[in-house]
Parts: sequence; C-alpha cells; structure tokens
Amino acid sequence: MTLQDIVTARHALRDVIHKTDLVPSRVLSDESRQVFLKSESLQQTGSFKARGAYVRLAALTEAERARGIIAASAGNHAQGVALAAAKFGVPATIVMPEGAPLAKVSATRALRARVVLQGAGYDDAYKHALALQQETGAVFIHPFDDPLVIAGQGSVGLEILEDLPDVDVIVAPVGGGGLIAGVAVAAKALRPQVRVVGVEAAGAASMGASLLAGRVVTLARASTIADGIAVRTPGQQPFAICRELVDEMVTVDDDEIAQAILLLMERCKIVTEGAGAAAVAAILGNKFHCAGKVVAVLSGGNIDVTMLANIIDKGLLKAGRRIRLRTVVEDKPGRLNRLLQIVSDCEANVVSIQHDRAHPDAGIGYAMMELMLETQDSDHVARVLQAAQAQGFRLLES
Amino acid sequence: MTLQDIVTARHALRDVIHKTDLVPSRVLSDESRQVFLKSESLQQTGSFKARGAYVRLAALTEAERARGIIAASAGNHAQGVALAAAKFGVPATIVMPEGAPLAKVSATRALRARVVLQGAGYDDAYKHALALQQETGAVFIHPFDDPLVIAGQGSVGLEILEDLPDVDVIVAPVGGGGLIAGVAVAAKALRPQVRVVGVEAAGAASMGASLLAGRVVTLARASTIADGIAVRTPGQQPFAICRELVDEMVTVDDDEIAQAILLLMERCKIVTEGAGAAAVAAILGNKFHCAGKVVAVLSGGNIDVTMLANIIDKGLLKAGRRIRLRTVVEDKPGRLNRLLQIVSDCEANVVSIQHDRAHPDAGIGYAMMELMLETQDSDHVARVLQAAQAQGFRLLES
Repeated sequence: MTLQDIVTARHALRDVIHKTDLVPSRVLSDESRQVFLKSESLQQTGSFKARGAYVRLAALTEAERARGIIAASAGNHAQGVALAAAKFGVPATIVMPEGAPLAKVSATRALRARVVLQGAGYDDAYKHALALQQETGAVFIHPFDDPLVIAGQGSVGLEILEDLPDVDVIVAPVGGGGLIAGVAVAAKALRPQVRVVGVEAAGAASMGASLLAGRVVTLARASTIADGIAVRTPGQQPFAICRELVDEMVTVDDDEIAQAILLLMERCKIVTEGAGAAAVAAILGNKFHCAGKVVAVLSGGNIDVTMLANIIDKGLLKAGRRIRLRTVVEDKPGRLNRLLQIVSDCEANVVSIQHDRAHPDAGIGYAMMELMLETQDSDHVARVLQAAQAQGFRLLES
Repeated sequence: MTLQDIVTARHALRDVIHKTDLVPSRVLSDESRQVFLKSESLQQTGSFKARGAYVRLAALTEAERARGIIAASAGNHAQGVALAAAKFGVPATIVMPEGAPLAKVSATRALRARVVLQGAGYDDAYKHALALQQETGAVFIHPFDDPLVIAGQGSVGLEILEDLPDVDVIVAPVGGGGLIAGVAVAAKALRPQVRVVGVEAAGAASMGASLLAGRVVTLARASTIADGIAVRTPGQQPFAICRELVDEMVTVDDDEIAQAILLLMERCKIVTEGAGAAAVAAILGNKFHCAGKVVAVLSGGNIDVTMLANIIDKGLLKAGRRIRLRTVVEDKPGRLNRLLQIVSDCEANVVSIQHDRAHPDAGIGYAMMELMLETQDSDHVARVLQAAQAQGFRLLES
C-alpha cells in the first residue's frame, strides 16, 4: 500500500464523500497541546466506513455488479456499503445480528439494502453472510481486510495532512485496523515524523495482542460498549501495515469511553459512538504522550439515543452533578418537608422522590425515602450530606 | 450597514474564529432540495456569539479597555464576551440570571470572567447590569443592538456564500435579530436573489410582531424552551435591517423544536440548543417554501445535558419508540409474568416496571402496574396493546 493508492482512492471519492472538518477543541487543549477533532461523525452515514465501501464498490466489474454484493456488519459498515451500493445501483444484502439497534437497521433499509437479521453477534452474522455468498455468488465486501477498503479509509489521513500539514500526533481508534492502517500510510508518507497512536477498547484489544505476538491472534471474546471496535480478530493486511507504521497502541475502558462520549456531547457538541470517542478517551486518560498539534479521529456517531441518555445519567452521577440519596425517616407529617427544606437551602434541585413505607429496611412507623438531586460537584454533594446529618437525617449515597 | 462592514469584521476574526463547516444533510434533503447545516454549535464557546463579541471588543479604545466591560446574558453572549475579553486581556463582568444552568455559569467562569448571579430572568439581569455599569463606568456590550456586533455575526453569511455561492435559501433563528440581520446584509449583497427566512419561537415572536406593526414592539412575555431566542424586544438596528432584507418570518413551537433537537442529535450527530434547532424545525414543519440549495444556520449547542436527556425521553415516547403503559391486574402470583411474556413475544423490551398495590385506582386484591417499554414505532405499540387485550389485560397508554 502506497500513498499513490490512497490519492487514487480519494480521487474516486471526490464527489461522494464530505471532506469533514478539523474542529479545534479548546476544552481538550492546554499549554502543551492543541487538539483538533476530525469529526467523521458528520460524514455521510455517520461514520468513515462509507469511504472504504465506496472505493471498493467502484472497482467492481460489470459482471460483479450484476451479481450484487453482500456484507456482514453490526452497523457502520452496513450503512457505508448500502450507500455505496445505492450510488452504483448494485443490489446489496447486509447480514446484521439479531440484536442490532433498530435505528441502524432502519437507516440501512432506508438506503434500499436488503437486511437479513441473523445470529447472536457479529461473528454469527459474518458466518451467515459467507454461507449466503456461497449460495448466491454475490461479491463479499469485507469491512477491513481489503486493500481498496484500507485505501478508502486512508483518505481521512490525506485530509488531515492537507488541513494541518504540521500535525505532530494522530490518534485513532482500532477495531479491525482498516482506518488506522490507511491513515498511517497517508500520514507517514507525507510527514514521516508524525506519530500515529492506535486506541483499542480494553475488552477487545486484539490488534495490540497481535502486535505483541508478532502475528494475528483471535481473542476468546470481545466485550466493550464500543461496538464499532469490538473485533476479536484484526485484519491480516491492516496488521502488516500497523506493525510497520503505528508507533504506539493504548487501551481505554468502558468508563473512560463513556466519559469521553459525555464530554464530546456536552462540551464539543458532537455525538459520537463508543469507538468514535475512544481517541478522546485516550487523551483524557493521559494514555500516551500527547503534545504539540494533535488530531483525534472521531470515527463515527451511530449510537443508540437510549444509550446516550443512559450515559448522560451515569456521567452526571459520577461527576457529582447528580446524586441518589437514601434515608430512613419517621413516617410522620412534616419530616419530608423538613428534608426538602434542607436540600433547597443547599441550592440543590430535586429531580425525583420515592417514599416507601413498605420498604423492608424501614421498621414499622418508618419509611424509606430515595431522592435524586441535581448538584454542582462532589463538594456540593458533601455539603448537602453534612447539612442533613446536622439536622439528624442519616443520608446515604446509594 | 454594508458588505464592507462585514468583510472588515471577518478580517478581524480571521485568527480567532473557526470557519465552521457546511455539512450536507441527506436526512433533510429530498428530490426538490439539498439541505446544508452551518453548524455554529461547533464554533468556539458553542455558538456564533463569539463573533460579534470579538469584533465589538476589538474596537475598544485603550481607555475603555482599562475600564473593563460588562454584559448581561443567559448563556451564549456571556461565553462569547468572556472569550473575547480573555483574548484582549480586558476585565469582564457578566450578569447572569440566578436560575442560569450551572454548566453555562461554569463555562463563563472558566474563561476568567467575573459572573454575578442576579435576577429571576434575563430582563432582571439586564437591568442589574445597567445599574452596575452606572456604578463602575465599564463599557456595556449589547448582545445584538450594536452595529459592530451585527457585522461580526454577518461573517456567518460571508462564509456561507464562500462555500456555497449558488445558495437559494438561508434560514436562521431570530431572537434579538443580530444574527439574521448580519447574515442578510452579507448574503443579499453577494447574491441578491437569495431568500432569507427568519425563524422565531412561537412563544417569543417579537421580531415578527414588530415587522407586522411597522415598529419595534415588546411582548408581555417570552416563553419557549429555546432560551437563546426568548427575547421580548428585538433590537432597533436589527429590526431596521430585517424590514428591508428578510423575505419571510415563520414560527415553530416547543414540540417542533424538541423534535428537531432529537433529529439533529440522532441523525446528524450535532448537539443543538433550542435556538440552534429552530431553523431545522421550520424545515421539518414545512413552514416555508424550502427548495433548491438551502442552508440552515444552527446558531449554537449550549444545552443542558439533563434537558437533552429529557428531550430524548419525550421524543422517543412521541415517535412510538418508547411507551408507558398502565394496567390494573389481580394481585396474584403469575399475573405479572404472563404480561411480561406477552411483551416479550411482541419483541418489545422492558425499560422499567412499577407495581403498586396501594394505588388508589386499584381496588382491594388488585394492583396498579406501570410498564415502560422500548418499541419500534406506533404500529408496534398497537400490536403490543392488542396482544395484551386479547389475553384479558386492559392496557392503557398514559
């Protein structure tokens, strides 16, 4: 794979793909570093996957187009392939696991692909797609282990170097390895001194394990909220490129990823999925030497909004901006009022209250109260607890 | 106000302001129109307000700088002014209403402005700021009724015309009118045939009322979830420009705004506040003839994440993707199980269950059950209800 392959791929993408912005982030920057976000969340289909899929489909022969294409995906590759197939007028079948979020299934169907729901997870769906391929003779489009797909994803790297020629570090998420391999080829060709850092989910660090072993290894399982990079076996071709060009591999856990999703949403106003937030999680967690001009690749934003709401809720709890308190109070008029007065005097807001006389932990004549409060930070939480204790309430964080 | 004023303003902003991207949106486009999002959510401080504030502060004399500046704001202008003041090293005092979201107060303080919390709403805060100005002699920075501020906001229009010279329609939110006035001056000068459409919140349509009356009028109250455009009195100078250059004014209600916030977050991956989503709400609601190349200005993204979580919850309910059901069941073992079996057979997911034997609507020997379910759409909801009814449950949407 050479720079020429990627330049050719980018040329094929010129009227199809949105050249995504490099957004400077004040929140992530400090005296020693200037951080920019390459926001592929804002790409067509909500992720970079449309790039590689389009380049791959552009190379199909007339005969292959007539046979149609088939792919397996839990989400982003599905939409990328479906978009490319629609542009070329090629019939597409996408096998998605049965538990795939409805929003992703609907988005893929809206692009006129035939969606087959089969298997418990990606591996099952992949096997089923290969079986279907045998039956139908359709062309199988691999999500990452394909030189044209890698070249397509590499266009992300070309764009970064075009907008920020003196970039010092590029940090990108790693699942199968297609994205970082393409980016590394482009970036190192144009600027050999740039450092390329790969970020994996701690529960699915198959590329890191493979680089350590010196050959592609398969993990027994992949477990992370970042479903876009929950890959048990990295690609052979991406592996070969990463071995040569990637400077460092790091991991982030699910809590760190959730925190990064929340920060990107709240402070940077960009919605990212788990994989999309992984690079920023690595910056926030000081997982590598992050100095100079740093580009974090946000690979995509296809996250279930219900999960987003959960991440907001849990993130606020963790930051001390919301707190759940429990206390056992005498079941007499006025006790609840008095507690609420204390809360209000402390300038905390009540989100919800539950009052349960029948709770097993409350003796006869007592009731269990559970309050959800909006607070400013951990110090504020401590002040609320102290004030209540001073008035004889035993408030417990729960 | 002429194009020259705006070109000059933009020159002053060249190293300070991020030229925000024009993101094509497939979801909002169809055969008759191509919609692009001018995403000022991704601007420094999360809104376009930094533009006008910076241009205004750049014009301060040495003597004025020494006196410091003062402003009143519920959020975005506060952060814009604070950023500009920090860049020029000018001491800044910002009066914010007492109920201002903590995230906005913290963000303003993080930019080293002195924040004074005073008054119940913007009007009170404004009065207090004027009183403080009298005491201290600081320079008052108006959020919209100032030619330099308007020229600064107009740089948004220049950028749009630069990226999309053949734009047909620009649709932008209107509060005090500074943004749309500046954009209209720039756009109409470069492309006289472009249509400029202003969008107000139905509960705060002061500019529309003023244009109708032929003079600036003050509403008795302004009530909308779009706090950024909850303005009772538009600016005199923006009014004069709008009268001349704005082609059409429309309104959107809070439900339409909330739906647009959800769509922008879920499908376009951009976080917007109420004002920021208003232009898209007008497109979704077919409030004006929307054809050709259309640019929707997303003015900002400073929304409380708790409100965002609420909007997700309510939006899912409204779209039939989540449903709250109530039923009174005999308080006997096995009844709850049977109901859950029906739900599961219909492929709906349980989000939460409440079972209340003491509920006043449940007779003795009965219990009130409330279920929150995840569903696919309104048809799916109907199927669940039918299946439960067929088994003797009286399920009510609540």
